[in-house]
Amino acid sequence: MATDDDKKFMKLAFEEAQKGYDEGGIPIGSVLVDSAGKILGRGHNLRIQNGSPTLHAEIAALENAGRLSATVYRASTLYTTLSPCSMCTGAILLYRIPRVVMGENRTFKGDEELLARNGVAVVNLDDEGCYELMQRFVKERPGDWGEDIGEETSSLP
Amino acid sequence: MATDDDKKFMKLAFEEAQKGYDEGGIPIGSVLVDSAGKILGRGHNLRIQNGSPTLHAEIAALENAGRLSATVYRASTLYTTLSPCSMCTGAILLYRIPRVVMGENRTFKGDEELLARNGVAVVNLDDEGCYELMQRFVKERPGDWGEDIGEETSSLP
Repeated sequence: MATDDDKKFMKLAFEEAQKGYDEGGIPIGSVLVDSAGKILGRGHNLRIQNGSPTLHAEIAALENAGRLSATVYRASTLYTTLSPCSMCTGAILLYRIPRVVMGENRTFKGDEELLARNGVAVVNLDDEGCYELMQRFVKERPGDWGEDIGEETSSLP
Repeated sequence: MATDDDKKFMKLAFEEAQKGYDEGGIPIGSVLVDSAGKILGRGHNLRIQNGSPTLHAEIAALENAGRLSATVYRASTLYTTLSPCSMCTGAILLYRIPRVVMGENRTFKGDEELLARNGVAVVNLDDEGCYELMQRFVKERPGDWGEDIGEETSSLP
């Protein structure tokens, strides 16, 4: 179930995504928030900007949060503008983050079933802004998008 | 099935692990190798050195390899001195790396079943050197080890 806070933090995740787009990157953003509503970390996909195959938005937000105790992770919520891929799903499971709120999963559907099977609460806001920004990007740069999700449509040699 | 090349590349992964230990870090190392036996990337866990919650050895090796096409990933082998956690398992699945060779899984057993269910060939060398180095570390610094795998035994507040 989505709350008013969910909309507020998704707006921040979207701002990260927009920042990524404006930098010429892949427009996916993420925010990690603790149980009191304090932002622990935020970030956006840095594949293009840093030449990074692992800094997906969720990983960037976790990295930006720095080292945290298991207790903090286990009471946090991860916001992401797009359904998390296998790697980001695995990071959520590693740290037992109990709740994931995504902007949309129409552009790409990650391992939501694996999250749910492991007891993670998964909320999809089906946000039109997140969807439109990703759709614009995928149309403009299908090769970079394919690369980001390990597809053969990658524009790399 | 393990090959002579597997032993050779595991030796390099172990060198990375030892380097991590010598730096005061968590002694896990990893090497990504292409189908012709060329090293694409190598790295070790950087939690302590970089204050990084996401640079597990496998992620560090992928990051060090830089941006690669799906075709390259899909013909590569990932060597790691320890059974890959959920996050690293997810990264392997994202890029459809078809083969994972681990040093051991007695200290920690990750998501090997998930890898196997997704068609990844999983080889365990049960290497005594990898096992002994990890055992030494876990005994010396159980808090840092707990933190690395998201356990409550973390020494962080």
